[in-house]
Amino acid sequence: MRGTVLDAFADRYAERTHGMTASEIRALFAVVSRPEVVSLAGGMPAVTALPLDAVGSMIGDLISRLGAQALQYGSGQGDVRLREQILQVMGLEGITGASADDVVVTVGSQQGLDLVSRVFLDPGDVVLAEAPSYVGALGVFQAAQAHVVHVDMDADGLIPQALSDALVALAARGQRPKLLYTVPNFHNPAGVTLTEQRRTEILAIAEAHDLLVIEDNPYGLLGFDEQVHPALRARCADRVIYLGSFSKTFAPGLRVGWVCAPHAVRDKLILASEAQVLCPPALSQLVVAEYLDSQPWLEQVKVFRELYRERRDTALGALVALMPAGVSWTRPDGGFYIWMTLPEGLDAKAMQPRAVHNRVAYVPGIGFYADGQGVGNLRLSYCFPEPERIREGVRRLASVIEEELELRTTFLGEAVAGRTRGGQPHGAGDGPAPNLP
Amino acid sequence: MRGTVLDAFADRYAERTHGMTASEIRALFAVVSRPEVVSLAGGMPAVTALPLDAVGSMIGDLISRLGAQALQYGSGQGDVRLREQILQVMGLEGITGASADDVVVTVGSQQGLDLVSRVFLDPGDVVLAEAPSYVGALGVFQAAQAHVVHVDMDADGLIPQALSDALVALAARGQRPKLLYTVPNFHNPAGVTLTEQRRTEILAIAEAHDLLVIEDNPYGLLGFDEQVHPALRARCADRVIYLGSFSKTFAPGLRVGWVCAPHAVRDKLILASEAQVLCPPALSQLVVAEYLDSQPWLEQVKVFRELYRERRDTALGALVALMPAGVSWTRPDGGFYIWMTLPEGLDAKAMQPRAVHNRVAYVPGIGFYADGQGVGNLRLSYCFPEPERIREGVRRLASVIEEELELRTTFLGEAVAGRTRGGQPHGAGDGPAPNLP
Repeated sequence: MRGTVLDAFADRYAERTHGMTASEIRALFAVVSRPEVVSLAGGMPAVTALPLDAVGSMIGDLISRLGAQALQYGSGQGDVRLREQILQVMGLEGITGASADDVVVTVGSQQGLDLVSRVFLDPGDVVLAEAPSYVGALGVFQAAQAHVVHVDMDADGLIPQALSDALVALAARGQRPKLLYTVPNFHNPAGVTLTEQRRTEILAIAEAHDLLVIEDNPYGLLGFDEQVHPALRARCADRVIYLGSFSKTFAPGLRVGWVCAPHAVRDKLILASEAQVLCPPALSQLVVAEYLDSQPWLEQVKVFRELYRERRDTALGALVALMPAGVSWTRPDGGFYIWMTLPEGLDAKAMQPRAVHNRVAYVPGIGFYADGQGVGNLRLSYCFPEPERIREGVRRLASVIEEELELRTTFLGEAVAGRTRGGQPHGAGDGPAPNLP
Repeated sequence: MRGTVLDAFADRYAERTHGMTASEIRALFAVVSRPEVVSLAGGMPAVTALPLDAVGSMIGDLISRLGAQALQYGSGQGDVRLREQILQVMGLEGITGASADDVVVTVGSQQGLDLVSRVFLDPGDVVLAEAPSYVGALGVFQAAQAHVVHVDMDADGLIPQALSDALVALAARGQRPKLLYTVPNFHNPAGVTLTEQRRTEILAIAEAHDLLVIEDNPYGLLGFDEQVHPALRARCADRVIYLGSFSKTFAPGLRVGWVCAPHAVRDKLILASEAQVLCPPALSQLVVAEYLDSQPWLEQVKVFRELYRERRDTALGALVALMPAGVSWTRPDGGFYIWMTLPEGLDAKAMQPRAVHNRVAYVPGIGFYADGQGVGNLRLSYCFPEPERIREGVRRLASVIEEELELRTTFLGEAVAGRTRGGQPHGAGDGPAPNLP
């Protein structure tokens, strides 16, 4: 009988393994790599805008000079020169007074979040996260067998009252969330930013409820008006764990991110990282350190900002010009993403095959929720395609939505058109809408 | 009162976090970096033997040509060109018939082992591992809250009868181990290699008991007589998960390893890796792929082998010439390590301050056990220091042991000298000994 068993190990996986599923984004990989498809799906930075020859010769020199270090094991906490530079980078977003000793270099900020989860989360623990939330964070929490409770956002980011309500509701059930996971700047996937006023309010609520806050900030330096929103960590050092990344300001292929955490937590994170990868790649760390020291990296961030701003403008312009009535979307001030709400009765995941047939790809909204919300939503990324391709992609998507609307009206009638969609009310109207979802 | 609390988060860590402790190796980091200390502690490969200029210009060219790929996100499973090359590398140790689709590239083989643990181990699960065992593996199993049961080794590696006995004893208690973790070649820290005959026997036992085997093989190509021991995976594809690494054949600073696993398991490993790091570093992967394609990498492995063989010979010669009676050690045929057994009544960890005072460092044996064995053992690494330094280190260590013996005899008398040491019997005699503990 052995030969006929599909998975000989099916009876011995860990409990957590049974919950592991591929994300909506991964399912799209094969599709979006086809050249005829305009992909508004992946969040890949525009690394071709980097001066590749200069970076190449910088790295070549680096190996000749420091190869014995760049190719050797390093410390689990990460290179000390890089950790000093990270203090400077965080300083740009208002974080002062941190020490290089508070910083742990990680294999992308994804590993940083995973380490935080390993250190804090037992199976069944409750985690608060925005609705919608970063799909990679949901994957981490799922692997940790945590229970995600979503907290509503609007155009001003996480809603303080919603956070308060969630905490009170949990307390009434005898539950205390282990942490709040939040992306305050240029949110993935929602494209919105937490206002100054709300930052103060969110931190006051965290203080009142003794809540640990995980601030994930990969896009903070990519504000299109060069605005900087001081980090939550800048206002509160003792209950905010900060996740940073060089994936969007330099290059994701290096996998260099970091965690800045209170002293006692930082020690645990290092131990967890050593058990996971021994140490982050020395080569990647020295490349980043050398890049920050020897190249005009802030000028390059400005180049990225301008490039993404142009693409954002193109995407928004095309949406206004081409989308049928009843579709709404957010207006990001930075970062990579627009969050779209379809007219009542449309299902972004069900629409996907038709979209791919029409040679345009996006990520269905349900991937950004742990609880089945987001049926009528989708995420558009404008970071990677050239403007002309973005316009063409939006044109194709608009015609797909029009066909869906026509189908709904013609074949299914009012019974379906009047059906409600997700798990919460929403006020999608024509054109740009200030409210999420 | 808050201000006086040392760790404000002490009440909210995960269960697994309470068991996390720094390894014996990490505790030595500060000490061994002092230049006056001869470190026989760390297992750092001799990367300075690499042609750094050639590697530097290779990487510089690579970025100029393929920067858009090397600096971008990649797939969670790893670069397909590299996975094809890994099949060739595994072929050198007898593994044929594997597919690139069976391979998952990892952030060093440490991450590979961590992924296997996440996919298979629930808290309380039993893991079988050699006595002694790789300290990094013990860290992974500790983080997984697994219970390690050690299985005895001797100069021929893991003892089949001991494995059988352990399985029977566990079954009698109603326990079934989730997996056996083994390093068959040039064992870390024991320095011994599993014989051909025993490979057959171990796999027969695994088959009879439906036991999953994790084969960790970072040193397989570093046999000093150019002998190759066909991998366990070469004889058994369906119950062996194979961990490979470029850390010892090329460079650890890249953090590139891999797992080769049965189909169903491989899918789970990819999902677990995506949740942990999204994808392994593209830069590191392309560097390894380019190095394998464009550089005489097998010639370089031969250079490493010769260099380590000379250092092994130096270490063994010095041990024979200088160690006092009652000290015994293993004779590695490859790899980085010698495992030493002190005379009755000596404690390697207690002796450490005196050793450091005498400017020589090693790793106390207790770090390589999960159960308190190894008190009278220590690990010597000959991979990194120059031969003359190795000789000096052994000379210093011999004089420390002599002083310890003298102390024992002079001050403490027979009561202590006759005390037994660890958790198991051992037959340490004068000079090189064929038997472990």
